[in-house]
Amino acid sequence: MNKIITISREFGSGGREIGKRLADQLGIAYYDREIITGIAKETGFSEEYVSNISEKGAYSYPFQFGKSFAIYSSLQNNQTEILVTQQKIIKEIAQKESCVIVGRGANVILKEQNPMNIFVYADLESKINRCRQKADENENLSDKEIEQKIIQIDKNRKKYHNILSNLEWGDKRNYHLCINTSGIEIKTMILPLGEYIENWFRRR
Amino acid sequence: MNKIITISREFGSGGREIGKRLADQLGIAYYDREIITGIAKETGFSEEYVSNISEKGAYSYPFQFGKSFAIYSSLQNNQTEILVTQQKIIKEIAQKESCVIVGRGANVILKEQNPMNIFVYADLESKINRCRQKADENENLSDKEIEQKIIQIDKNRKKYHNILSNLEWGDKRNYHLCINTSGIEIKTMILPLGEYIENWFRRR
Repeated sequence: MNKIITISREFGSGGREIGKRLADQLGIAYYDREIITGIAKETGFSEEYVSNISEKGAYSYPFQFGKSFAIYSSLQNNQTEILVTQQKIIKEIAQKESCVIVGRGANVILKEQNPMNIFVYADLESKINRCRQKADENENLSDKEIEQKIIQIDKNRKKYHNILSNLEWGDKRNYHLCINTSGIEIKTMILPLGEYIENWFRRR
Repeated sequence: MNKIITISREFGSGGREIGKRLADQLGIAYYDREIITGIAKETGFSEEYVSNISEKGAYSYPFQFGKSFAIYSSLQNNQTEILVTQQKIIKEIAQKESCVIVGRGANVILKEQNPMNIFVYADLESKINRCRQKADENENLSDKEIEQKIIQIDKNRKKYHNILSNLEWGDKRNYHLCINTSGIEIKTMILPLGEYIENWFRRR
């Protein structure tokens, strides 16, 4: 059976870096942006539009932009289509090959494939620092603004998770390993982490 | 500086086994029962009495046994003495050598020494199974009774933790790594776990 590792993560905690490096270490595929591309292809929406919706709770857009009911309803349909396509694509990926999938509630969507589910988190200071390092996106933001961005994105991830499941996003009970990346250099932790994961799958 | 690893754990999750094996793997000291012995020696109470109190919230005894106020007050004094001595001994241990300390709020007591704090947990089924394996203590208990024992002991640990700190016991934010032992064989995970810990300390 394919080995599926899902990485859920707080924004700025380095979950994506962990996922990417782990996939390299384990010699398996890595899926993140590819899911967006797949959805865009299937639905005909732009990648940017899909990306905005793919980890957000439904109905978050209309209120934010104060659209009319007609647009609200059309957005709602688009969102539903995107989220349904996303689930389909994630299931297809897991059928196809061993892989690391970052975000998008893959831990819940793939429950029946018994993935290893990891949650990555960090203290606020570490998360702000990590965001700062992505200078292109965040160079003009103050610490306070980055903090607000972190809170907003995680709120959306939580909301999205709530559509898929009544399990709480980030509750350690729903993950096999929870990694606090505060103050650590991720690349130094990948080797033992990869071995831990391989042993975890071996137990079956 | 000494490397201090604290293991907090749900009852039945195998935290003690992880602690013991990790100490062997890392070639450092392991403290659990030794703390009880130390407290008993310093205070003059029996090891059994100390053991009953050392991870419980103060004032839990009187209500349980319905003692009179005089006995209540004396128990309260004993508990305070035991908990204060425990803190002193744990601090002495951490000053003396690198070690693994299981339970007793060592993560909070040793905060200033920057220990690596691990939380070990599991689903109920796994915890009941692990308790079953300790046949001597639990052989006459039904699953329901073991479940009640697990809930009661963890409640006491939480209460004890609340005396030491306003941080929540078991909240992943207060630990560097949270390990779900559901369905895994602990000894197979120790090697990568030990390496992860060594790398964690190296970052400083």
